[in-house]
Amino acid sequence: MAATRPHPKAQSTTRLEAISDGVFAVALTLLVLDIHVPDADPSKLFGELVKLLPHVLAFALSFLIVNFYWTAHQVLFNSIQRSDRYLLWFNALHLLFVVFLPFSTGLLAEFHHTPLAVDIYGLNIILCSASSIMFWLYAAHSGLITDNLSRDEVRLVVWRLLINPLVCAVALCVAFLNTTAAMLLYLVTPIWYVLTGPDAAAGDRGTWRLRWPLRRSRKPGSG
Amino acid sequence: MAATRPHPKAQSTTRLEAISDGVFAVALTLLVLDIHVPDADPSKLFGELVKLLPHVLAFALSFLIVNFYWTAHQVLFNSIQRSDRYLLWFNALHLLFVVFLPFSTGLLAEFHHTPLAVDIYGLNIILCSASSIMFWLYAAHSGLITDNLSRDEVRLVVWRLLINPLVCAVALCVAFLNTTAAMLLYLVTPIWYVLTGPDAAAGDRGTWRLRWPLRRSRKPGSG
Amino acid sequence: MAATRPHPKAQSTTRLEAISDGVFAVALTLLVLDIHVPDADPSKLFGELVKLLPHVLAFALSFLIVNFYWTAHQVLFNSIQRSDRYLLWFNALHLLFVVFLPFSTGLLAEFHHTPLAVDIYGLNIILCSASSIMFWLYAAHSGLITDNLSRDEVRLVVWRLLINPLVCAVALCVAFLNTTAAMLLYLVTPIWYVLTGPDAAAGDRGTWRLRWPLRRSRKPGSG
Amino acid sequence: MAATRPHPKAQSTTRLEAISDGVFAVALTLLVLDIHVPDADPSKLFGELVKLLPHVLAFALSFLIVNFYWTAHQVLFNSIQRSDRYLLWFNALHLLFVVFLPFSTGLLAEFHHTPLAVDIYGLNIILCSASSIMFWLYAAHSGLITDNLSRDEVRLVVWRLLINPLVCAVALCVAFLNTTAAMLLYLVTPIWYVLTGPDAAAGDRGTWRLRWPLRRSRKPGSG
Repeated sequence: MAATRPHPKAQSTTRLEAISDGVFAVALTLLVLDIHVPDADPSKLFGELVKLLPHVLAFALSFLIVNFYWTAHQVLFNSIQRSDRYLLWFNALHLLFVVFLPFSTGLLAEFHHTPLAVDIYGLNIILCSASSIMFWLYAAHSGLITDNLSRDEVRLVVWRLLINPLVCAVALCVAFLNTTAAMLLYLVTPIWYVLTGPDAAAGDRGTWRLRWPLRRSRKPGSG
Repeated sequence: MAATRPHPKAQSTTRLEAISDGVFAVALTLLVLDIHVPDADPSKLFGELVKLLPHVLAFALSFLIVNFYWTAHQVLFNSIQRSDRYLLWFNALHLLFVVFLPFSTGLLAEFHHTPLAVDIYGLNIILCSASSIMFWLYAAHSGLITDNLSRDEVRLVVWRLLINPLVCAVALCVAFLNTTAAMLLYLVTPIWYVLTGPDAAAGDRGTWRLRWPLRRSRKPGSG
Repeated sequence: MAATRPHPKAQSTTRLEAISDGVFAVALTLLVLDIHVPDADPSKLFGELVKLLPHVLAFALSFLIVNFYWTAHQVLFNSIQRSDRYLLWFNALHLLFVVFLPFSTGLLAEFHHTPLAVDIYGLNIILCSASSIMFWLYAAHSGLITDNLSRDEVRLVVWRLLINPLVCAVALCVAFLNTTAAMLLYLVTPIWYVLTGPDAAAGDRGTWRLRWPLRRSRKPGSG
Repeated sequence: MAATRPHPKAQSTTRLEAISDGVFAVALTLLVLDIHVPDADPSKLFGELVKLLPHVLAFALSFLIVNFYWTAHQVLFNSIQRSDRYLLWFNALHLLFVVFLPFSTGLLAEFHHTPLAVDIYGLNIILCSASSIMFWLYAAHSGLITDNLSRDEVRLVVWRLLINPLVCAVALCVAFLNTTAAMLLYLVTPIWYVLTGPDAAAGDRGTWRLRWPLRRSRKPGSG
């Protein structure tokens, strides 16, 4: 019985999740490096700090978005049980785009009125989402996920992951008309994601089970 | 029996604590990046290093404060056993304010005679505390904490978490009179926290049990 | 029976892998710091971004290469079960060369037409590989690896680890004729590594067992 | 029986070790940020890189030293089984001095002929050692370490930890005569530490048992 439990060394997702957490943590923290302490006369500090506002807002936006991807990563890896070399590389591709976000954020903060900068930021988000869909689909099709997920549930996860890049694709076009509107669109999915409660969602749809693997342990009486 | 133990993948707080530890670790280390090696003639090095003193002191102060929040985070998560999406986001909000501290620290070091800079630093601390109270209250009210904590114990933790922001709120006002006094006030709670011993405190109040979950394992004879 | 399981504190590779993952994660993320947001007129942003292209490509190349070494590190430590002080230091030497890569990357991005810079980058890769061969050979010869690896398997791993430095040694010479060709050679092994599938490879050669310790758990019926 | 095993949440050293590993990993990697890519004409690159040599050597020296402290930290925490608040703060003090090393390293690289800079570096090392002695003594005297260590073994560890600061104290004085000699002295203990083999040492003295908790698991026949 105990022999069927795989050797701890074989739980390859452990280190995959460890390095991903590390990369997400550093990316989250590097975002603040773009906010430079102004080099001004103390009497003019208030004015200088006001000028930093776009950088602070871009920092908060990107912090929200990196967290959004970290949350998604964690939820997806709750269902991914095994790892292979391809999954490592799909995951690396995802991390590559996440790591690029501090640069895109700095660009957005500096050129928030320029459609080009706003679109590079949006493209970066789209690539983050696309790569997360890739590693999820690969894991699902290679039998690396848990057995208790049906094909419909796997597909529903993909649909959910598609929402953010689709909204951002619209934002890419909107940016040419109004960059502020585009930036607000980037906020839509993460904020919707934050606001939708676990309980309401769980009552709604079966896929939410994927998101809340803990629910079972919440009903200790059923054990 | 063994079946009631939840699957390791379901221990969602594991990765929540991992990314938080990562963010705290990077934030602690980034603080030193604000202390720049002076670009001076070797004969004038001493004078240049003396000019760095505010940066070194601000670094030490913030190191103390980030550690204070890490300690609190670790103590709170000793009692938080499960995670859900809201908790992830409340925790993310807490990390956002922690990650902002390296910037506030740089600002404080550069403008330690300017009330505005000193107040931004204090406000940052208050937001760190407020967000930690939020995730604690959410966890307690959503049944994510251990069952052996009474409502009174939960409330006592909140009161303890309120001490630091209340002292800092006073410091915000004091800063307009004397910035040095305000900065000393920022030190009060962390230092009081460091000095209060575990044993003395444990003898005093029941809530300290929350802080010292290890005590049981210290009395092996009682097992 | 249960008594033969070593105490968790004794699994020294746990922390060795933890600090390595941390170093790899920070190195991956620091790479992006070399891509600076241009300080230009918004109307000239496109032209300025085009000038950043070498930096973006160097970033992607190094991200690929650091990941390549992280993957190798993870695969090797799947077979390394115990640690001793020498292994810590061989591993530290490996990390030293990995940590140096962000500098080499910046140098490559800035001087991609200069053979000297391209060669320093290649030398850095060779040193990363050489040090990973060193810690693997040390571990194998000191009985720190799993018992189910034959001497031939250990040697095959060394041969595989030698491919990348040998290709890079050729690239070092090529750089004096054509720096672009040399940089393309740096890509060869990582891309070959990404493309070679786990299943095809597993059918081919026995050593791949080393790479896919998970295969056993993939056939639950055989347990 | 199973009840005597402490709850995983109670293993407080887990997160203490996690944040320490994170801080050490970031500190190791930040060291490279001090080596700036030269802004020169390609034809003069070689000369510019030669000027970077002090920075590269200071990087390698500090990498060695931070690793030295990480190794010591890991060895000490192999014997520290429980944590309390004081230990958290002693450990934080240790990390504070470790985090300061990237600054001291930059200072040393820039002013390696100036006794003041060389002494600040040495003082930093002494403080790292002093704080590690403090947390070890505190842990030993508060019953946080394993029971199978005798008082003599605890004391021998302290003596071993004292070697490095004593050598550095000599280096502080030597720096006023010859800075290069002082810097070579900083290398003595870490290199002696690297070179002394685990087996030779284990045959010599009983305390080495503390360093090699894995030895027992190396003799599977004795289980």
